[in-house]
Amino acid sequence: MTDTELPVTLLGTGAMGRALAGTLLDDDRPVTLWNRTPGRAADLLARGATGAATVREAVAAGGPVVVCLLDHAAVHATLDPVADALRGRTIVNLTTSTPAEARELASWSAERGIAHLDGAIMATPPMIGGPGAQILYSGSRTVFDAHRELLDRWAASTYDGADAGRASLLDLAMLAAMYSMFTGFLHGAAMVRAGGVTGVEFAERATPFLAAMTESFAASAAVLDSGDFSAPPQSLDWTGAALDTIGRASREQGVDPAPVDLLRALVRQQIDAGHGADDLGRIAEGLRVGRSAA
Amino acid sequence: MTDTELPVTLLGTGAMGRALAGTLLDDDRPVTLWNRTPGRAADLLARGATGAATVREAVAAGGPVVVCLLDHAAVHATLDPVADALRGRTIVNLTTSTPAEARELASWSAERGIAHLDGAIMATPPMIGGPGAQILYSGSRTVFDAHRELLDRWAASTYDGADAGRASLLDLAMLAAMYSMFTGFLHGAAMVRAGGVTGVEFAERATPFLAAMTESFAASAAVLDSGDFSAPPQSLDWTGAALDTIGRASREQGVDPAPVDLLRALVRQQIDAGHGADDLGRIAEGLRVGRSAA
Ligand SMILES: NC(=O)c1ccc[n+]([C@@H]2O[C@H](COP(=O)([O-])OP(=O)(O)OC[C@H]3O[C@@H](n4cnc5c(N)ncnc54)[C@H](OP(=O)(O)O)[C@@H]3O)[C@@H](O)[C@H]2O)c1
Ligand SMILES: NC(=O)c1ccc[n+]([C@@H]2O[C@H](COP(=O)([O-])OP(=O)(O)OC[C@H]3O[C@@H](n4cnc5c(N)ncnc54)[C@H](OP(=O)(O)O)[C@@H]3O)[C@@H](O)[C@H]2O)c1
Repeated sequence: MTDTELPVTLLGTGAMGRALAGTLLDDDRPVTLWNRTPGRAADLLARGATGAATVREAVAAGGPVVVCLLDHAAVHATLDPVADALRGRTIVNLTTSTPAEARELASWSAERGIAHLDGAIMATPPMIGGPGAQILYSGSRTVFDAHRELLDRWAASTYDGADAGRASLLDLAMLAAMYSMFTGFLHGAAMVRAGGVTGVEFAERATPFLAAMTESFAASAAVLDSGDFSAPPQSLDWTGAALDTIGRASREQGVDPAPVDLLRALVRQQIDAGHGADDLGRIAEGLRVGRSAA
Repeated sequence: MTDTELPVTLLGTGAMGRALAGTLLDDDRPVTLWNRTPGRAADLLARGATGAATVREAVAAGGPVVVCLLDHAAVHATLDPVADALRGRTIVNLTTSTPAEARELASWSAERGIAHLDGAIMATPPMIGGPGAQILYSGSRTVFDAHRELLDRWAASTYDGADAGRASLLDLAMLAAMYSMFTGFLHGAAMVRAGGVTGVEFAERATPFLAAMTESFAASAAVLDSGDFSAPPQSLDWTGAALDTIGRASREQGVDPAPVDLLRALVRQQIDAGHGADDLGRIAEGLRVGRSAA
């Protein structure tokens, strides 16, 4: 039996689970589905999927058990009662988890003789199976290699190491960056729109500009890694003054400059600590607050 | 006399003024320099620039008067005493100004019979004269057209209309977006570095990802312009939950989730107002706080 003939069990037919299942059904692959609330996958059943009334029944269908539920609590609520049935089997958890949650599930699985791979989906449901989708994996390399064909069907797959939390860490850090970028775009758009420029006109300007500016990340990251902030292209003093002007322009437009003020405060913190001549990257130090309970 | 033979007066030989002057000297163009603190352009004088002891003397050299000083206050401190000598002449102000400041200088100039073009430099000094530099202009179209060759020598030039504040508005809105993107990148980098991943490794992942995500600005902007937030790719409720997970992961790593919490608060504000099913773009409405004194 080749990998593509192997049955797949999918726990969770929310928006993402449905997209994952749909791609496999496109390939006429045997798929068994379970969802907490029944009746939410009628179209997938009509396309040939097998419905399972219970998690245990779904797991019994064999093959890797793909989990795509709301959150970590939902994963345990679903898997804990069938831990005995999962012994010797494989779970691929595509539920968004924090690194600590992913590691916790890895330990839980290891203690119960379950092979575990954690995946972090960098795509929306309509992107699954298409060219732009990416899924990061970490945890069991054996599972990743054994099911590579399956995983690649959904998205470009990368393996980020045995630490089950690594994929989630990279994913959530990139999403953190993305959401701040979105905040910035919406802030800039609000500023120009208050001045009679359309959002679309702003997007035409901002898209190539911000895309080009992502090229500066490499140099900025090298500074972070070196810990030497002493030869900046622009000093924190300079950046602070620039942020003041941007903030003033934002207020002029009747737009809350909060996103820029946040960076201004981090810059001020470093200037006050005597680092005004240093690189902007120093603010990453200011964000280090020490570990707290999750 | 062609445009390239016309003398240029430059007020301000800070980092940016020096770069602007240097490019013109590369072309053997006659340049007269003035700087508040004397002796800061010895190398430019050695390369053929003419030094002026006073602003009045610099202006008397003829040609367009390019102003590149610290801020708006410095511009007035420098130009006000020689307003009479500027009558019938042209100023190109490349000093970073807010839109209101640019409009104020436009009125000031118009009242005194001075032609005025405002420029917003989107480049660092070393970029001037090179391929990546961009300068946005607004104000007098006549000035822009008459000196196009000069302006294009420094950077790719665009003319954004007769409203002198327009170039500055677009510039500062794009910079607002850029700085939030940088905040996000540094936040993400701090998260992964706390987990043992290098900043450089993170940059390799985040650069193409964020560059690709800038492609979503167009659709996001179209939603803003339409005012119809009702058909989101992902709802505010969904985004709020995603931000909670990112924030939790950030705290797990000992990194302040402030950048993500800022967006979370804006999202919560819209959810509390009953818009949980709507598009993220709604937060731009939440940033509108009404105009205040600058
Ligand atoms: N959608 C995206 O764009 C996207 C992108 C990347 C990652 N993800 C991740 O993919 C996962 C699923 O997302 P989704 O978009 O499919 O969400 P969704 O449409 O809200 O579906 C949530 C799923 O979780 C189930 N569930 C919730 N609580 C449960 C519990 N206590 N016990 C058992 N099942 C429970 C739901 O079952 P019911 O039908 O019974 O409620 C449903 O199947 C999430 O971790 C999400 O972060 C999604
Ligand atoms: N550097 C960049 O990357 C960059 C990028 C885009 C835009 N800009 C804009 O370009 C302008 C100049 O920046 P820069 O980098 O050249 O700054 P800078 O190196 O700090 O130079 C500031 C200049 O302003 C002069 N100045 C300050 N206060 C003055 C006053 N009250 N009266 C007269 N002159 C005064 C200084 O003269 P002294 O020598 O006497 O102090 C100096 O020539 C700023 O508006 C900046 O925002 C710069």
